[in-house]
Amino acid sequence: MIKFAAIGMTHYHIYNQVEMLLAAGAELIAYHGEGEEGENFVKRFPQAEFRSIEAILDDKQIQMVVSAVIPNERAALGIRVMQAGKDYSCAKPAFTSLESLAEARQVQTQTKRIFAVHFGEHYGSPSTVKAAELVQAGAIGQVIQTTGFGPHRLFGHAPRPDWFFDKQYFGGIINDLASHQIEQFLYFTNSTEAEIVYSHTANRHHPQFSNFEDFGELVIRSAKASGYIRVDWLNPKGLATWGDVRLFLLGTEGSIEIRKNIDIAGKAGANHLFLVNQEKTEYIPCDNYPLSYGKSLIADVLNHGETAMSQAHCFLACELALIAQKT
Amino acid sequence: MIKFAAIGMTHYHIYNQVEMLLAAGAELIAYHGEGEEGENFVKRFPQAEFRSIEAILDDKQIQMVVSAVIPNERAALGIRVMQAGKDYSCAKPAFTSLESLAEARQVQTQTKRIFAVHFGEHYGSPSTVKAAELVQAGAIGQVIQTTGFGPHRLFGHAPRPDWFFDKQYFGGIINDLASHQIEQFLYFTNSTEAEIVYSHTANRHHPQFSNFEDFGELVIRSAKASGYIRVDWLNPKGLATWGDVRLFLLGTEGSIEIRKNIDIAGKAGANHLFLVNQEKTEYIPCDNYPLSYGKSLIADVLNHGETAMSQAHCFLACELALIAQKT
Repeated sequence: MIKFAAIGMTHYHIYNQVEMLLAAGAELIAYHGEGEEGENFVKRFPQAEFRSIEAILDDKQIQMVVSAVIPNERAALGIRVMQAGKDYSCAKPAFTSLESLAEARQVQTQTKRIFAVHFGEHYGSPSTVKAAELVQAGAIGQVIQTTGFGPHRLFGHAPRPDWFFDKQYFGGIINDLASHQIEQFLYFTNSTEAEIVYSHTANRHHPQFSNFEDFGELVIRSAKASGYIRVDWLNPKGLATWGDVRLFLLGTEGSIEIRKNIDIAGKAGANHLFLVNQEKTEYIPCDNYPLSYGKSLIADVLNHGETAMSQAHCFLACELALIAQKT
Repeated sequence: MIKFAAIGMTHYHIYNQVEMLLAAGAELIAYHGEGEEGENFVKRFPQAEFRSIEAILDDKQIQMVVSAVIPNERAALGIRVMQAGKDYSCAKPAFTSLESLAEARQVQTQTKRIFAVHFGEHYGSPSTVKAAELVQAGAIGQVIQTTGFGPHRLFGHAPRPDWFFDKQYFGGIINDLASHQIEQFLYFTNSTEAEIVYSHTANRHHPQFSNFEDFGELVIRSAKASGYIRVDWLNPKGLATWGDVRLFLLGTEGSIEIRKNIDIAGKAGANHLFLVNQEKTEYIPCDNYPLSYGKSLIADVLNHGETAMSQAHCFLACELALIAQKT
């Protein structure tokens, strides 16, 4: 089984990654994180030993590093990790510029190490993974359109550091939040190329933050399909969760709707999937649907494989998010 | 109370209009319709007397004509009706070219008669009318985005004449189906100007119809808001209704979702409204919410008013649908 370390926990998305790897059997042996974020981390994972970044990178027994440093530092760290002969997984967004993406692509090709981006709204979402299984089995024919809503709560859910309100640190709302759904568009429509045909960002309701966006939308197209993606920081307090994240898959023979976090004023819990096709309308609760991404990622570390996610797919999703943000 | 006549019932949308006016107290006295469509009509409304179009237009006691002739004949008929000194209401789409729209606008300005388009997915939908009341009362702040899905069943729901599969007769899928949602975008975002910033149509699953589209989408923008609209003819047989029509309103202080026809694998019946704002998450059943459009339209006929819908709003929605279809 692999040993791994965590570097940088400025965003709580470090916890998803660590817990996923632990659940899949990996061993967390070291961490690097300063101040309160380091203290909180080691309180939760006392088995991890504090070390300098250099000491972690020099330790030959550490095969993988996971990270949630500030987004605009994630690519550079990943490049160092790969150059140290280790595999890397970071929270999204992994990149804040096309230049850093190009460099990471180049180093990944040279070193043949893994540069993974943790798209938790897909691979950490049982209803989304179940939808993938249904689509692959032909339950709704060919997927010709996806629509994704990614509303997020700004306050009250997680502490927000200063960098959170200045888009130079995370690349803007589309780059930050919509990369999830761009990845899902590529995945569900089985597209290896795509184009951003429309995008738009705005700050509609937070004039106090001058370098911030609270709304973003885009249309993405491939030869086979199109996708509309909408993200925002407007989730109201009256919702019982941080965001009513939805994904709608329109197929030639049916459709799937996923209500990832909540079924508003409806069924209890999370991970709701609704299937309609030529035969039936069916509700499929997915709370207990097993996730395999963590195990696949560990297998890829061990075998230099690409079973969890192909490197081309991962970089393409990030690239399209950067392009959508720019245009 | 007003007297009215029906001319042309090639689409069953004639029935919505007639029944709405009857329910609001108007008197149906004549019709013109040939063959089976005329026979079916008079079977349902035996009080209506068959007459020629000329005889209807010459009858001074008839104040209004409703129509569902073939779409590419609706504008010309409306122009004749207005020039005969009567008000007009037709099914959507009212126009299949910008030229016919320009002519209708001109004649409407000259004659000061009503040229109404029956946007039943708004004014005939109790949940949509309830949403309008909530938005006007400030329940979700300023509406900054609308998303609308208009899936439709192609076969098995209504008989489809030959013209139905040749877009020269109805102007294409966006012009035909998305005009509803363009109207709702303008209405809910309180926009008097808007631009089509993206649109796309395709025939993804019906190669047997060479001059037909089964998918259309567009993005519309005003200074205050944006809207994404998706329509299709792919509604699968396993759904208990002709289409799972949805409208999502994203506001600065909350959101509303309307499930107009069905709550898939959920609550019984139709007309479901879900409100989430800073205070609460609430389900509002709207089956019994009263509709006032018919009464307003009759009042407008009597008073030369614009309370049901302003003429500018009506023509703008139609114009934007034509533009979206063209681009």
